[in-house]
Amino acid sequence: MKNVYRFTEGNASMKSLLGGKGANLAEMTRLGLPVPPGFTVTTEACMSFLETGSYQKTLQTEIEQAIRDLELATGKAFNSSTHLLLVSVRSGAQFSMPGMMDTILNLGLNDQNVKALAKLTNNDTFAYDCYRRLLQMFGDVVFSIPKSQFDSQIAKHELNFDKNVSDFSKREFEILIQSFHQVYQINQYTFPQNPYLQLEYAIQAVFNSWNNHRAKVYRSLNQIDDALGTAVNIQSMVFGNSGQTSGTGVAFTRNPSTGENKLFGEFLINAQGEDVVAGLRTPQPLESIRTILPEAFDEFQKIAHLLEGHYRDMQDLEFTIEQGKLYILQTRNGKRSAKAALKIAVDLVTEKISTKEAAILKMRAEDINQLLHPIFVESELKKATLLASGLPASPGAAVGKIVFTAERAKELVAFGEKVVLVRRETSPEDIEGLLAAEAIVTTYGGMTSHAAVVARGMGTCCVTGCEAAKIEEAQKIVRINNQLLTEGDIISVDGTTGRIYIGEIETELSKLDENFQSLMQWCDAIAKVKVYANAETILDLRTALDFGAQGVGLARTEHMFFGVERLRAMRQWILTEQKSEALAQLISFQTVDFYQMFKLTKDKPMIIRLLDPPMHEFLPHGNREIQKVAKELSLTVVEVEQSLAALAEVNPMLGHRGVRIGVTAPDIYQMQVTAIIKSAIKHWREGLRITPKIMIPLIAEASELILVKQQLIEQIQTIFQAESIEIPYEIGTMIELPRACLVANDLAENADFFSFGTNDLTQMTYGFSRDDIGKFIGDYQEKGLLVNDPFQVLDIDGVGQLVEMAVQKGRSVKPNLSIGVCGEVGGNPPSIAFFQKIGVNYVSCSPYRVPIARLTVAKEAIHRLS
Amino acid sequence: MKNVYRFTEGNASMKSLLGGKGANLAEMTRLGLPVPPGFTVTTEACMSFLETGSYQKTLQTEIEQAIRDLELATGKAFNSSTHLLLVSVRSGAQFSMPGMMDTILNLGLNDQNVKALAKLTNNDTFAYDCYRRLLQMFGDVVFSIPKSQFDSQIAKHELNFDKNVSDFSKREFEILIQSFHQVYQINQYTFPQNPYLQLEYAIQAVFNSWNNHRAKVYRSLNQIDDALGTAVNIQSMVFGNSGQTSGTGVAFTRNPSTGENKLFGEFLINAQGEDVVAGLRTPQPLESIRTILPEAFDEFQKIAHLLEGHYRDMQDLEFTIEQGKLYILQTRNGKRSAKAALKIAVDLVTEKISTKEAAILKMRAEDINQLLHPIFVESELKKATLLASGLPASPGAAVGKIVFTAERAKELVAFGEKVVLVRRETSPEDIEGLLAAEAIVTTYGGMTSHAAVVARGMGTCCVTGCEAAKIEEAQKIVRINNQLLTEGDIISVDGTTGRIYIGEIETELSKLDENFQSLMQWCDAIAKVKVYANAETILDLRTALDFGAQGVGLARTEHMFFGVERLRAMRQWILTEQKSEALAQLISFQTVDFYQMFKLTKDKPMIIRLLDPPMHEFLPHGNREIQKVAKELSLTVVEVEQSLAALAEVNPMLGHRGVRIGVTAPDIYQMQVTAIIKSAIKHWREGLRITPKIMIPLIAEASELILVKQQLIEQIQTIFQAESIEIPYEIGTMIELPRACLVANDLAENADFFSFGTNDLTQMTYGFSRDDIGKFIGDYQEKGLLVNDPFQVLDIDGVGQLVEMAVQKGRSVKPNLSIGVCGEVGGNPPSIAFFQKIGVNYVSCSPYRVPIARLTVAKEAIHRLS
Repeated sequence: MKNVYRFTEGNASMKSLLGGKGANLAEMTRLGLPVPPGFTVTTEACMSFLETGSYQKTLQTEIEQAIRDLELATGKAFNSSTHLLLVSVRSGAQFSMPGMMDTILNLGLNDQNVKALAKLTNNDTFAYDCYRRLLQMFGDVVFSIPKSQFDSQIAKHELNFDKNVSDFSKREFEILIQSFHQVYQINQYTFPQNPYLQLEYAIQAVFNSWNNHRAKVYRSLNQIDDALGTAVNIQSMVFGNSGQTSGTGVAFTRNPSTGENKLFGEFLINAQGEDVVAGLRTPQPLESIRTILPEAFDEFQKIAHLLEGHYRDMQDLEFTIEQGKLYILQTRNGKRSAKAALKIAVDLVTEKISTKEAAILKMRAEDINQLLHPIFVESELKKATLLASGLPASPGAAVGKIVFTAERAKELVAFGEKVVLVRRETSPEDIEGLLAAEAIVTTYGGMTSHAAVVARGMGTCCVTGCEAAKIEEAQKIVRINNQLLTEGDIISVDGTTGRIYIGEIETELSKLDENFQSLMQWCDAIAKVKVYANAETILDLRTALDFGAQGVGLARTEHMFFGVERLRAMRQWILTEQKSEALAQLISFQTVDFYQMFKLTKDKPMIIRLLDPPMHEFLPHGNREIQKVAKELSLTVVEVEQSLAALAEVNPMLGHRGVRIGVTAPDIYQMQVTAIIKSAIKHWREGLRITPKIMIPLIAEASELILVKQQLIEQIQTIFQAESIEIPYEIGTMIELPRACLVANDLAENADFFSFGTNDLTQMTYGFSRDDIGKFIGDYQEKGLLVNDPFQVLDIDGVGQLVEMAVQKGRSVKPNLSIGVCGEVGGNPPSIAFFQKIGVNYVSCSPYRVPIARLTVAKEAIHRLS
Repeated sequence: MKNVYRFTEGNASMKSLLGGKGANLAEMTRLGLPVPPGFTVTTEACMSFLETGSYQKTLQTEIEQAIRDLELATGKAFNSSTHLLLVSVRSGAQFSMPGMMDTILNLGLNDQNVKALAKLTNNDTFAYDCYRRLLQMFGDVVFSIPKSQFDSQIAKHELNFDKNVSDFSKREFEILIQSFHQVYQINQYTFPQNPYLQLEYAIQAVFNSWNNHRAKVYRSLNQIDDALGTAVNIQSMVFGNSGQTSGTGVAFTRNPSTGENKLFGEFLINAQGEDVVAGLRTPQPLESIRTILPEAFDEFQKIAHLLEGHYRDMQDLEFTIEQGKLYILQTRNGKRSAKAALKIAVDLVTEKISTKEAAILKMRAEDINQLLHPIFVESELKKATLLASGLPASPGAAVGKIVFTAERAKELVAFGEKVVLVRRETSPEDIEGLLAAEAIVTTYGGMTSHAAVVARGMGTCCVTGCEAAKIEEAQKIVRINNQLLTEGDIISVDGTTGRIYIGEIETELSKLDENFQSLMQWCDAIAKVKVYANAETILDLRTALDFGAQGVGLARTEHMFFGVERLRAMRQWILTEQKSEALAQLISFQTVDFYQMFKLTKDKPMIIRLLDPPMHEFLPHGNREIQKVAKELSLTVVEVEQSLAALAEVNPMLGHRGVRIGVTAPDIYQMQVTAIIKSAIKHWREGLRITPKIMIPLIAEASELILVKQQLIEQIQTIFQAESIEIPYEIGTMIELPRACLVANDLAENADFFSFGTNDLTQMTYGFSRDDIGKFIGDYQEKGLLVNDPFQVLDIDGVGQLVEMAVQKGRSVKPNLSIGVCGEVGGNPPSIAFFQKIGVNYVSCSPYRVPIARLTVAKEAIHRLS
């Protein structure tokens, strides 16, 4: 087993072994780009170390050999007084985990050779600054000495010397460094003077960082396998902090917020890499290099262009200029806002850099989700009170209560609150708070700060560098431009403009542009599974069709009974003996309902579910309403109360609902079917040829389906005779009880189509009531007993087995049986992938999830082709 | 296809083709017994007729040939004036359906040859009596002319002639017969004079009777396949009504009530068969023949003994003596009371007539159930007021409200009432009422009347021939020995003694005798599946062990918290912060509980389920109780109400219960496990080596089981260390959610045993709440959508699939995994058969069902051996 690869030995395809960073460093080296030489210790070595808990001898030998080669390549050496070799040690896993693991710079310095470095660079303060940084990072990363212990030494000495640390003299640095050694001693450690020992410790620390808490949380959130491990990149140092012709920067080949095809980035003169990322100093725009170091800038532009073409995607580059000479330290596919992702994906196709398939694969479901995220209503925005402005770090609009810590954010969100996390700056420790918040506001940091990168990745609205916000965390207050806000105050944050407003502003959806339409059309052309929507109101049906739904997978009919007159008729039907009068009223309402719905959906299929909820859901509650209803229906209060008592249920979810109502009170289903068929006939007469699809819910036994279907068919035939017309129609069943899956072959014989109701199926399979799950799901997720909420992400291991069984059994009887999925998981990408695998014909989801579903089914089709 | 078999052509093994009656007539013919000659039309011919709706030509030819053979065999002929052949036409299906289908006697008579019969027998009134009976039966069976139309003619003429029909003269019979012909005309029918035509009509009518309402109800109740059809037996008539040396009788080779090994039966001088069965005349005991016709009696005794030995079971015989000569008309295995069934089964083994296996197979689960039926408490019986006495037709004791019609019986039972059906006599039309009643009382009829036979078959307590009861059905009153009782009055009926009492008498279980113990021991020796009981109270545990439970499959722990002090401690734990104080109290109660339980079960396995119900079940309801609890626990009413509101659930069945409580509040499970282990340790120290089996309920995910099991193990290890002892224990899981079945392989890796909770599994699989199912299950059963209540009989098609899957998945990981079933279907015979087939180790049921389960598992073992 080879544990160490020089940059000259690897390439971009070796990400799983060398990590993303290492593979790309090797690739750039292969392309002849100015990459400081170095080598990568493999992910396999990491896992072997983590499993055995010890550092293999052979690994140590390989590393020593690689260091010797590096010394040869650079003409420098550890401990050399003339050509001192310093290295950076950086983690780099297969999948990018920004800031999640540890980095050590300037490794190789010690009490002796810091002097050599000072002499070599002719810059005492630079050398000592490097050394004090090494001591800090090494102490933190290798020995877990709290950063604050070093910080408080800095603060103490800044006070003593009455100057900022960046202005310390050599002597002052020596005193500071002495105090750092004392910090080590207090913690019962000693800083190793031997560079090889430093390296060994550092590599082990990076290995161990794979299993630190925040890395684990990140992997769990991003579903990255714990068994991958991280590689370690050892690279000879170049110094962006070596004077005014030096600096370090981060750049994107296109604008990561807007997608504009123009270099975008930031640069800090006389700084090391982590100064940019940490957001401690606010950097200059990239363009500023053009005036300071025009040659370096030109070279950088060329390299950026080359890398984008090479990787066929927008790149995120880290670079350092050391005394006028450009070095590229990293390239990777850049994270971007959803808007930018869409524009870049489509532009790369237009520019013939990428294929449509690649464009589709590049888009993330979260990006689409973000595009569908709300913006502030323009007219409301005009009336709003502007509080402050910062950098527009991640687009979108959000409203929430101010919180100052990630922990508090998590707490309030657990109670159903929406929060805006307001912090000086964010760090990887805040990851769970960032996830929980609706929006993020930071006082410091630029467009590439931690907060900005993470927020864009998650599609969370974010404003950074809002320096007007003076936070007093301990007091839980923030002063912004003379306003004093405390925890719990509501603010509105516009991540697209960087503006922050007092109070709540109404939001609306952003308009979907041509790029969006193009991408969606490419998706539809490639997809094998259709995307329907769950919708029944005119508004929802319009939204669904606007978002490109190819049909309606679930039109519920119960909401149609909640208008005042309808509810009265429904109650009359339930509570009185004037049932036919009540039904006559209901039928006239329903005929209009279905006529209007068909008018919108036209030739697109629409599956109408017959009445599903238990009758008590339509009855009044509370004395006043009971009295009102009794009076309206000429009943006594006692009669209404008796009916209420008779219809009350202990477990309504498992009660008298769905087809069970169709069995015990057939006239309500007959009324609905009459309305459906009559309204469809009206359309046929007007030239619109509609095939109504009628769905019977909550079937457990074939006998139920046979009985109710027969009754409906008889009713339909009566209508056909009365109207002297016959039109095609279908009667299918919802599969939403475990038993329905188990006897799906029997059901298929009697059904024109199946539609999985995954919500109820999940409730029954788990024995989870959605109304009550809140009492324990928090504990369950915290203790890792449930990875996902099974109502959001299909439980493939359990519920999925039943679904797959039902598909197989159904198709064993009817090979061409139309099978769909409605329910919330119908819009969830990994769930959709599973549904496609087992052969469903369509997924149906809420209108707002239709575009995500269209993307996902297209991606699945591409994956299955390749 | 041969449609007709002469009695000389068949044998006892041909029941499916010839029906039970036909096959046994053939067998007796083969044995050389005095059976009047005849032939059988097959069940296949019946089904072919019912399917095609027409009488096949070939069938007609075969029948005509058989009649000619019959004429040859008897030396008689249709329409002969010297040797007139008359036949009976009787249905006879594969499985006995007593009285459910139709019979016609004396077929072949007509206006002409009735005179020949009169001359031949030298008995005018005999001949005309036969003819008028034929006209009545034929009119009823073939043309569905209401019996009452004939009866009212009889009544009219009895009034006119001022005498009973049995005393009519030839002339009076002629007038009656003339009036019967008019009844035919009024109904637009003519009685066919041609005997061949009579026969054709009669056979078709018997075929059609297979599908009459009461036959269908009977088949559905007894799970007899509708596709079997009935055979038709055509047999030359012998006449029990031909004078004082003639008669007809019914006999059992042993006493069908007590099982005593002594001929038991009844006999009517000068009567035809249906006179005995209909119960219109009260017959004499069988022994009375001995004095009247000693030779015939001797012959009958010999034949009875021979047939019992031949069939190796108690026989039920029908016979006729025609002018001193004995004919056997039917033999079949006799229906018997449970007590008799048990005694006969055991006696036949003792007498070496039958094997133990045959004895076990002969016993029905219903018999065992009946044996466990109550008797009146002796001391209470002494104080009771005797109302009247009748014949002890079917043993047992029951209490109920008087009803006078089968219909009313059904109605009241549907409302949860217990009823006693009081009737003059019963007929097959009453079958549903007989099923519904707790007890049956008839004014007329003997021990072999319809009511008596049916009641014994069903194990319903029955008193017949209680002639003191004068019923006025229209007024809904009954006068008994000067007492006037009306519908709804409560009486107590003792079917073992034939006594009827006013009011309600307390009942208790009958003692189980040596026969019972013998049979049960044979069962246990043969069985492959063990029988455990669901029990936790000391009383239930004792009952279970007395009934031979081999272990305890489910000891619930929630009932243990309902004592006053325990409930207080439980509420303290739920509602207050003094949780450890509450737990300390609970643990001391529970340690005593488990100590006592183990003391009873000793070395038998006992599976203890940890707390299962949601917390709100322990909380107070109603203002007064809430106030009381608040005061007791030093809380405010508002605080208690807030807790109640916080713990309330929409669907408690799918809520925060079972292991979900173990996850969110681990201390309650730890308390229980501590009590279990500590009490077991106490027993070990006292010499009783107990292996506690701890069961975690409501597991859906392996992760839940792993977490909670680990917590319990840690607790147990802590106890072992503190107590300086280690004892064996097991931790298993309940499989009661569909998902648990689907991931049973994952669960098996982490469980020492599985126990299926079929009640909850059925609720979830069907989406049926047991608390709410009452709202529609009636409709479902009436409409035939559900054949059985799935909570009583395992739904093999649906729930059974999940159970089988879980067994296979569990054993795929642990081939020797102990798997049991608790839940009500654990005591249901067809369900047990399924469980045995799929390989469960034990079934566990309520204590009173343990003996039935022991019988059933033994039967299954025998079936699987053969």
